[in-house]
Amino acid sequence: MLTLFHHPFYASCRMVRLALGEYGEETALIEEYPWSRRKEFLALNPAGTIPVLLAEGDHPIIGGTVIAEYLDETRGAFQRTKRLMAENSIERAEIRRLVDWYLVKMEGDVTRHLARERALKPLMGGNGGSAPDSGAIRAARANVRQHLKYTNWLASTRDWLAGQRLSYADLAAAAGISILDYLGEVDWRDYEAARDWYSRMKSRPSFRPLLSDRVRGVPPASHYADLDF
Amino acid sequence: MLTLFHHPFYASCRMVRLALGEYGEETALIEEYPWSRRKEFLALNPAGTIPVLLAEGDHPIIGGTVIAEYLDETRGAFQRTKRLMAENSIERAEIRRLVDWYLVKMEGDVTRHLARERALKPLMGGNGGSAPDSGAIRAARANVRQHLKYTNWLASTRDWLAGQRLSYADLAAAAGISILDYLGEVDWRDYEAARDWYSRMKSRPSFRPLLSDRVRGVPPASHYADLDF
Repeated sequence: MLTLFHHPFYASCRMVRLALGEYGEETALIEEYPWSRRKEFLALNPAGTIPVLLAEGDHPIIGGTVIAEYLDETRGAFQRTKRLMAENSIERAEIRRLVDWYLVKMEGDVTRHLARERALKPLMGGNGGSAPDSGAIRAARANVRQHLKYTNWLASTRDWLAGQRLSYADLAAAAGISILDYLGEVDWRDYEAARDWYSRMKSRPSFRPLLSDRVRGVPPASHYADLDF
Repeated sequence: MLTLFHHPFYASCRMVRLALGEYGEETALIEEYPWSRRKEFLALNPAGTIPVLLAEGDHPIIGGTVIAEYLDETRGAFQRTKRLMAENSIERAEIRRLVDWYLVKMEGDVTRHLARERALKPLMGGNGGSAPDSGAIRAARANVRQHLKYTNWLASTRDWLAGQRLSYADLAAAAGISILDYLGEVDWRDYEAARDWYSRMKSRPSFRPLLSDRVRGVPPASHYADLDF
């Protein structure tokens, strides 16, 4: 069985859990607090970041996109319709562009700040914990809108975010947006196409474990686990 | 011919130029200032980031690692000894981990800050230009050492940074470190193995165009273009 070091409030960890679910891989989950810089964990990944997947032979595969490529090469490539990557290089580049959009750009503009200020700081204690920074929360909230608008545009012009098939792009987007939705930061009324797409994502069996995620001291928005929201 | 939108002070742009050089691709270079958010450029890449490669059919391929994967699929995979990726999935994951280390971690800890504060701000004018932030420079300088130490450790335990062959990991590392070296931020005396590795990188024909890079108002350190430094 594979082992994943993760935390529910990191989008790249959620993406990897979705991918493992789509490929039907049973995985042992270990919740890791990257800010505590645990010695045994740093021996696996000197960068101290999550996610880390212990693959065959307990070989550590490090980072969300690196794990996604690894799973594509060792699982996806042998699937036909369930593969989360395209066959064609230009389409693959489009999937990777969007994975980067959600795991790097939206993460840096929005998700990382809201997750840290609203949910993680109380857990961090002496390792960076302090009072929430209301300026950072305000700045991040101002950026939520443009990312939902872009997602809405993608969802209204394509079947799935990167094209005709479910791909890593959908998983990365749903991973980040589900953290914002947990925190009640998404006003779905304004984004009908995105809402329809997110509702399809939420109904997938791979999504179920994410909907039961709970972070200590931070209850989810009331509609978080509702398939009909 | 391919076209690359780039700027000499962005590590991911330098990595792509090195890769194109290694694969012998003649490329038209267009210097782009991402902070000016040029309308025609945003139409190619709504994220507004560089590098962007116009590939076959003028299809925009967006982002350093995305371009690296595209070049591997369309060029590298057909080369034998000159391929910049490994064949084996575990070795590929190690190359990708290190590309991420240099283009994301070192970039965020060090390179982005020193490049912005010391070189880019004067060019930015009304789009984010202001006086250099000496606190940011100090914090970034304090992090240079750990990245050179890690590079030195890799270089002293392996032939090339990710293993027995030149790979994207070497290109990403040399891309970031060459920006720091241009700015005179590397004290090579303390890192003999890294210096020997960097000297081999500098001697490659693909590196020559980088050594003649000049940024307006920021002359390079005196040894920057010396093969014997």
